[in-house]
This record gives sequence, C-alpha cells and structure tokens, in this order.
Amino acid sequence: MRQSQLLMTTLRDVPSEAEALSHQWMLRGGYIRQTAAGIYSYMPLGLRVLRKIESVIRQEMDASGGQEMLMPAVQPAELWKESGRYDVYGAELIRLHDRHDREFVLGPTHEEVITSIVRQEISSYRKLPVTLYQIQSKYRDERRPRYGLLRGREFLMKDAYSFDRDWEGLDASYRNMYETYERIFRRCGLDFRAVEADAGAIGGQGETHEFMALADIGEDTVVSCSQCQYAANMERAESAVPEEHTGRDALKTDRSSAIERILTPNVRSVQELTSFLQVDPEQLIKTLIYQVDGENVAVLVRGDREANETKVKSYLSAELAELASAEAVKQATGASVGFAGPVGLKLKVLVDYEVAAMEEGIAGANQEDAHLKGVRPGHDFSVEHIGDFRNVTEGESCPRCGAPLQFHRGIELGHVFKLGTKYSDAMNSMYLDIDGREKPLIMGCYGIGVSRVMAAIAEQCITEERLVWPMSVAPFQVHIIPVSVKDEEQKSLAEQLYGEMIKAGLEPLLDDRDERAGVKFKDADLAGAPLRLIIGRGAASGEVEWMGEDGNKINLSAAEAVQRTREAVARALNG
Amino acid sequence: MRQSQLLMTTLRDVPSEAEALSHQWMLRGGYIRQTAAGIYSYMPLGLRVLRKIESVIRQEMDASGGQEMLMPAVQPAELWKESGRYDVYGAELIRLHDRHDREFVLGPTHEEVITSIVRQEISSYRKLPVTLYQIQSKYRDERRPRYGLLRGREFLMKDAYSFDRDWEGLDASYRNMYETYERIFRRCGLDFRAVEADAGAIGGQGETHEFMALADIGEDTVVSCSQCQYAANMERAESAVPEEHTGRDALKTDRSSAIERILTPNVRSVQELTSFLQVDPEQLIKTLIYQVDGENVAVLVRGDREANETKVKSYLSAELAELASAEAVKQATGASVGFAGPVGLKLKVLVDYEVAAMEEGIAGANQEDAHLKGVRPGHDFSVEHIGDFRNVTEGESCPRCGAPLQFHRGIELGHVFKLGTKYSDAMNSMYLDIDGREKPLIMGCYGIGVSRVMAAIAEQCITEERLVWPMSVAPFQVHIIPVSVKDEEQKSLAEQLYGEMIKAGLEPLLDDRDERAGVKFKDADLAGAPLRLIIGRGAASGEVEWMGEDGNKINLSAAEAVQRTREAVARALNG
Repeated sequence: MRQSQLLMTTLRDVPSEAEALSHQWMLRGGYIRQTAAGIYSYMPLGLRVLRKIESVIRQEMDASGGQEMLMPAVQPAELWKESGRYDVYGAELIRLHDRHDREFVLGPTHEEVITSIVRQEISSYRKLPVTLYQIQSKYRDERRPRYGLLRGREFLMKDAYSFDRDWEGLDASYRNMYETYERIFRRCGLDFRAVEADAGAIGGQGETHEFMALADIGEDTVVSCSQCQYAANMERAESAVPEEHTGRDALKTDRSSAIERILTPNVRSVQELTSFLQVDPEQLIKTLIYQVDGENVAVLVRGDREANETKVKSYLSAELAELASAEAVKQATGASVGFAGPVGLKLKVLVDYEVAAMEEGIAGANQEDAHLKGVRPGHDFSVEHIGDFRNVTEGESCPRCGAPLQFHRGIELGHVFKLGTKYSDAMNSMYLDIDGREKPLIMGCYGIGVSRVMAAIAEQCITEERLVWPMSVAPFQVHIIPVSVKDEEQKSLAEQLYGEMIKAGLEPLLDDRDERAGVKFKDADLAGAPLRLIIGRGAASGEVEWMGEDGNKINLSAAEAVQRTREAVARALNG
Repeated sequence: MRQSQLLMTTLRDVPSEAEALSHQWMLRGGYIRQTAAGIYSYMPLGLRVLRKIESVIRQEMDASGGQEMLMPAVQPAELWKESGRYDVYGAELIRLHDRHDREFVLGPTHEEVITSIVRQEISSYRKLPVTLYQIQSKYRDERRPRYGLLRGREFLMKDAYSFDRDWEGLDASYRNMYETYERIFRRCGLDFRAVEADAGAIGGQGETHEFMALADIGEDTVVSCSQCQYAANMERAESAVPEEHTGRDALKTDRSSAIERILTPNVRSVQELTSFLQVDPEQLIKTLIYQVDGENVAVLVRGDREANETKVKSYLSAELAELASAEAVKQATGASVGFAGPVGLKLKVLVDYEVAAMEEGIAGANQEDAHLKGVRPGHDFSVEHIGDFRNVTEGESCPRCGAPLQFHRGIELGHVFKLGTKYSDAMNSMYLDIDGREKPLIMGCYGIGVSRVMAAIAEQCITEERLVWPMSVAPFQVHIIPVSVKDEEQKSLAEQLYGEMIKAGLEPLLDDRDERAGVKFKDADLAGAPLRLIIGRGAASGEVEWMGEDGNKINLSAAEAVQRTREAVARALNG
C-alpha cells in the first residue's frame, strides 16, 4: 500500500490518558481511537493487525475441526433467565429493552445462545462431537475500563463451544483446543504460559486453564515453578501444606492455659499491631469476615498472608464471596473491623493450614480496642474447617516439587473450560445416545480475547525506540522508505522495489509522501513493519539499506534486498 | 469439506412462520436460525455465504481506493445529540444506559462516529479525498421485522463514508462508489436496478440512488421506463406534468357558477362515493390532511390517485409528514374523515398538477355527510401551491421520454447518498484548505445491507426444485455425492475426486454420510452448490454424472469431470 493513501495520523506526544505502553503506542501510531471509555474504533492500520490475528485464529480453529458460525450480539433475556445467569451476572451485563419493552442483553459470552441452538440442531449421538466457534464483538460494562484494548467494554472475541457425548469426549475436545491455543499464541509471537485456573461453582468437574501473556502491565499474577511444569494463576495456585497441620479437629475446652487480654486502643491493622506489640506478623492470626452466598464466614490466615476469596468460595462450593461490610463485621463479631478473632465466635471459621499449625498466636478479642495473646488453634477455637485459604507468596515451595515458586505479571489471552452439563442441565439440551437414552450434552467453552491479544503482542514488541510486530500479524511486512521522494533516483528505485514486492506476493508499505526523513522514520517506528528498506543516496548506484527485525542494517543491491525480504518473510511465517 | 463434519440440519417441512422464499429455504437448509424476532444466528453453511459476499464487497471497495476500518456498535448518545438525530430518529434507535447511567445507542449507522473521528484525524486538504468503510453489525428496532434476513433488527452492513474538499470531489467519490456498487452486485449475480431516490431533508444537494434487486417479495416499488434509462423508486418517481396545469394561481372569487351541495350520508371513501354518485374516480378531488412538522396541510390528488408523502415533505422541506388523526381532521376541517374538501379551508393547500388541470370536480364539503359538486380549481379554491404530490401509476408516461412506465417489486440492496455538509456543519468537522481557510468536509455515505444481499440473492436463485447459489457466493462450488458410501467403488472414487478438487484449489462438499440417496439429493438441493457430481453405478467403470448450474446432466469420466468443474468455476468467477 502507498502511505499517501493510508489514513494514519500519528501523534508526537504520549497521550496523557494512556498508562499501558501498548495503549500509548497504538494511539500514537493511529491504530485505534477512543469513541467512549473502553470503546474503540480501529483505524485502517489497526484493523490490519486485528484481521491478521483473526486469520491466524481462524486457520488454527478450522484445522482443528472447528466450524465457524456467527451469533447475534443482542440476546433475549429469557435465555439468560433459563440458564440462571440473568440475576447473578451483575452490573457488567448490559441490559436493554426493545420497543415492545421485551428484555435483551448485549452478549458478554454466548453459552446460552449456542445451547439454545444446539438443543434444536443436535438430537442424536451421530452428530457428535462438534465444536462451533465465532469471532464477534462482546460487551462487558467494566467498572474501570482501562489500558486501551486490554480492558475494554466492547471488544472482539473468539468464542468456541464443544459438545460431546461423554466426559472422555470432552477431555479430548478440551485437549484439542488447549493445543490449538498453544499453536495460535505461538504463531502470534507471544511469550505466554498456560496456567491452571479455578473453575468456580462448577467445581471438581470444571477443569480450566488460562493462557497468560507475560507482561508487566498485566493485571493477573502468574505463579510458576522454577523447576517443574507447575503453573497456575494466583486465585488457583496451591500452597504447600505444612506437615503439622492436622490432628486438632476437636476443640479442647481446657482453658487452664493463659489467654491474655491486651488493650490495643485503635490498633487495627497487622502493621499497627506488629509495631505496637513489637512482634512479627507471623505471630498474628488475621481474622477476616466474608459474606459467602449471604452467610457470614470467618477466614483465618497468618498475619503475613493474604486470604484468597476464590479458595474460600471453592471450599464452600459458593457462587459469591466478598468481604463483609464494616457494619456486618460489627454485628457478627461485636467489635469493629480490626478486632475480630476466632475465640468464641459464633460463625463458621475457615482455618488456613498455616494457622492450624501455629502453637499459639495473637488474635482479635471481638471487643473494641482489644486483642488476645496466647490463642491456641484447636484449643481455644475449633479447627474443624481446615484448608488452603491464602495466596501463595513468591519464593515459597512449589506444591508439586518443592522448588521455589516464581511470580510474573500476566495478561489473560484466553481460557479453556470444561463446562460439563451446567448449561445442558439448566436449558435441557439433550441428545439421544446409541443406547436409546436421552442424555445431556457435555460442553466445553473456549475463549480468546482477539483485541486483547493485539494489545498483548504490542506490550511484548515495543522497545525503547520502536514497535516491531511479529511477521504473522504485522500490518505490513516491509516498509519501503525513500529518504527524499524529490530525488528522482530514490523515487524510481522505491517504486521499482515496491512493484517487485507486490508481484512477489509480499505486503509492502511505500512511504511515497513528501515529508522530511525524520518524520518518515518516526512514523515507521510506529507503523511497526518488521523489515525496512531505506533508499537514500545509494540509490544512484542501485544500493539500499536493509533493516531486519533486530534493527541491524546492511547495505544491499536492490535485487538482493528483494530476495532477502522474501526469505525473511518466509522464514518468519513458516516458523 | 466433508458433510459428516458440517453441522447442517435440514428441515423437510416449510416453517410456517416464513413467508419469503429465501427465508423458507434458508431455514430449511440450516443456513440461519432465529434467536429472537428479526435476530438471527448464522449456522456454518450460512456464514460461508455471508463471508463470500463480504469478500466480494471488500475486494471491490479496496480496489476502488476505500480503506477498511472498524467502529463500535455501542455509540455515545452525545454524538447523536450533536448531530441532532437523537431526538428525531424515533423508536428504531435502540437506546441503553451504562452502569454509570450514561446514555448510549446501538448504531443503526455511523455518520456521527465517523465524523467525530475524521474531524480529529483530518485537518488538512493534503489528506483528502478519503473514503473509509467497515463491515459490521447494525441495529434497527423495526416495528415489524420479517422475511428473515430481509428485514432484521440486527444485521450486517457495509457502510462507507467519503470526505472531499468540494462538491466536484464528492461528485467523483459518489460516481466511484456508484460504479463500485454496480460491480459488487453484478459479481453477486444479482438482477438489480439503480434508481433515483429522494434525499429527504437535505434537499437539492443530496443526490441519492438506491440499488434494488428485482424480486416479487420486495417491499419497494421500482418504477422504470420501458424505453429510456429512467428509473426511480416510488417515493421519488416523477409524474409527467399535464400541459394545462398552470395559470390559475390567483383565486377568482366569482362564485356565480353553481357549486352544488349534495347529501352523502356516511359516504366517505372514493369507492363509496363513485358508486353512490355513479361517477368515475377521475372526477373526484381527494383531500388529505397531513401533519407536516407539526402544521396541518391539505393535499389534493385526483380520486384515482395516491398521495405521496415524500413529495409533500420535499416540497415543504420538512422532516416529518404523516396523515393527521381523525380528531385533527375534524378540528381542521369541521367534519370527520371523508368529508374534507378545499373550498373555504383555512389551511395551506397543496394541489397536485392533475387536480389543477381539472375543469371541475367533486370534493368534500367540510360538513358532515355532504360533498360539493362543480368545484373549480383556481376558482373555488387557491392553487397557489401546485406540484407533483402523487404516486405514479403503472403504464403512465415516463417523465423523460413519454414511453409507458413499468413497475417491479424491489429489495433495497444498498444506497449511495451525497450528504454534503449536513454532519460536518452540525459537528464542526473542518479542514484547512490550500487557501488557508477552514472549510467543512464534504461528505458522502454509501451502504450495503450485506445480510440482506444474501437473502436477495436467494430470492432470485430459488427454483421450484432447488437453490443454486451464484459461484461467487456459493458455500461450496461443487457437491460430490456418492449414491451409496457402502459401495466401495463409489466411495473410493468419491474420495479420489474430492482429493483432486481440493488440490486444484476448488471448494468441494463431499457427502460422505451413510444416508439414503433421496435424503442426500434433497439436502443437496438445499445446500445450493452450483455444480454437482453424482457417483453411482458408473463408478465401476470410472464414470460419473456431472450436473451444471442449469441442472442438465451428462456422463463423464472422472478426469473429465474434474476438468469440467475447474473450467465451470473459472468461467463463473471470471465473468
């Protein structure tokens, strides 16, 4: 394409509203423009990248046996009521009414629609297994849309749904998609990890993995072992279980030992308490009150640890868990936030392994301005509900092999999920099996945030000086830059090379604009073509400067430059 | 593709809710499924057709210099308030609120968004002209969604917007798009007409054409000359002006001539009146009361004609015109509906040319149960506002050449429209011209209903027995049907031919299912591949039955069949 024909308005300054590198560069390069908070327009340059990513995804999905279809964004609320999600989805679900006042939602995902279709289309085992997918705009009314395409409210997603006769079938479909995702992200040039994630309310059946791009801007923490293959997200990552954590399940009511009440006026936080009492945080028992599906529950972790809501939910097979309000804490414990403790508490108490393993500790007294010293787990409070209720910390032991765990920041690119019969049961999606019995379809779902992938790639491909897209998704493969189009020799050599590249099936961008060289190079740094051909004074003798992905430049004859470009493109695309 | 791997559930019965042929066949063939009224899911077979149409459009748009981009479906209401359309768009505009109660709309079109982008991106004449387009889902809350994809509420559209320095530039951009549309619809195999249409409130500047596919199910009437190139839609089609229509603009108040009041108890309609008085409808003056931008206006047409609201609006440069309510008629005329007449009426009276040319006629008396005979235009009422206010009728004279006009039913496939400065002015979208002055961008907009094109093609391609897609949009080019896959010779020849077709870059569908021949042929009639290869008993001697687009069959050797298929595909695709 000729750059004079490309609407690519570049900005010299870093837009002040953009925190993430990818967001800054995509605004500066004229890839995207914000239409509303979290809602973007893709300019011609940006759309080229997006379409390339789509194309990689489509090729791999088709090759793995997926069938593409297209479902509507506007979905009848009835389907969401049928699945039970209409009431629980919360404020992220955009709801609307039509002119007849019927309720609809803007789809954040399509389990309901696909299930309503498949229960009509598939009645027999003979049509199974099948995996259907689409690439389509999704809607989530994020509380805090940010980082450009990384957390948007309207975004492009590839979502796929598999239907199998049984769990063995689902295992195979899931594995197939898992491997397809690995191929997709590898082809997109991403540095990523597949990590175990939590399946939420679906529980044990619901195996799920997230694919995370490693990047500092990432909002998720990827936990991985420095030695073995273990990797999980923070919600899911298992703590190593201390050896002496059990055997105290019954509460011994022998209170001869000295629990000491200490006055701690207005001393609430772990930090305040350690400095007030001159103790280590490991000596404290932190008591957090959660509302779990409407019930108050206490969770105990060591003072130096963070509680993990996902693990709490999972232990209780709950849908929702959130920290109780200050008022609810007061009502449940008799004291304000900061003074809760397990002794005498009339709630279900979940005790983290590490707390259970403590000889004694310091806990809140359930009284204003007071704590208790010498509190002994299993002696002064019950450790009936014992488990892993905390976040792991960097450097602690891998639950598999014991080597130190590492932390990285990650951007969620996609996920694969064994849904099982969650939707089939709720929406009565059955098939007739070979034995003549009606059985629920066994489902899996598989998502990739297409527009987010674009931002994640950018995050990993921006250096101090320039953005270099991987060849597979680059808007243009090679940028041909005559230093001055007023120089006839430069201009005609540039035109000649452009013509030859087109003929060779390459995707060149020719900067045919009458601009200063500095402007052209700055724009080229933003346009992100992996290869560059600079045509300057050497044009007179048919020589050009060729720049590879690594930024190294060499002088070549025009013919060599074309040949080298072809080779570099072929090498990059064929892995 | 192997049919065993294609989720294509066909229905034997015609779905009762589907009136249009295309709707019936696309449901029967498993191309689409309804998710809500006017909201469809595209199944794998249907999506293949849709993507082919997209691809034709994209190729032609790119070739004509258009740049593809992608704007969001969710648009901030502020932009629509800025353009002034938020209040006038009516119930078709789907409105919604986000979690912070900010107003948004689901885009039925994107003039506002593109203008808000371009006013930022283009500041200088040096970036002009530019044409931007997208292919994207649109939303219109139709009162009566029907005919499947022909009138939906969520539908796929290609919309393009051109920006020029001046009107000459717009003329060129408009002509370019007009010709691009002709190429697109020709390549889609459509029988279509480009017709003049009405520009609405934009008036004289706003040249516009609609591209109409001829089809009986069409909701629009295409008026075209049997001799010359004149073609227009019904709203716009001009009546030939009778010779003696002028010269009576002043009202002569000489009332000596006999107006006769006649009692017509409960005789209201033209039909009732002609039969009651034993006169021809041509002798009647029909008086219709319209509300035009809030003002009552009377429109007079001959008893045998229909008034044309669009022409009334255009004459008055109005935004809205609708028939007044019965109550409003009574208040304005003093009598109920059916007895209105021009004599003594205190409203603006628009007189159609034909009425002005009448010597005398019969009109309502503006009294209950009474009409007036011998009413003379220009004598008994003013003909100050004279013009073309009626629909043309089939067979009347072409306004250009006088030959008889013909009517066809048409489906609107697309439109091209000279917007001029309507949005640039309202939204302050300016550029700096070469003379150093700020000027408004001159805009055009150009739409194609992509999903509607799919239905229109189907309407034209369905015969009694089968659907035959044009090669350019067919989901598969050739359907390979072994009559019995249990026959090893048939099966292996079918597999061999399938492999050869794939290798030749063709798109075959292989019916590898173990189904009865009758089922396979019925499904093939629905799948709509233009070519068919039937492999039956001849397989033993390497012979197959080859069927072309016309349904004629010949016996060929396997090698000949491949060769003939390649030729037929190449011929069809290269026109």
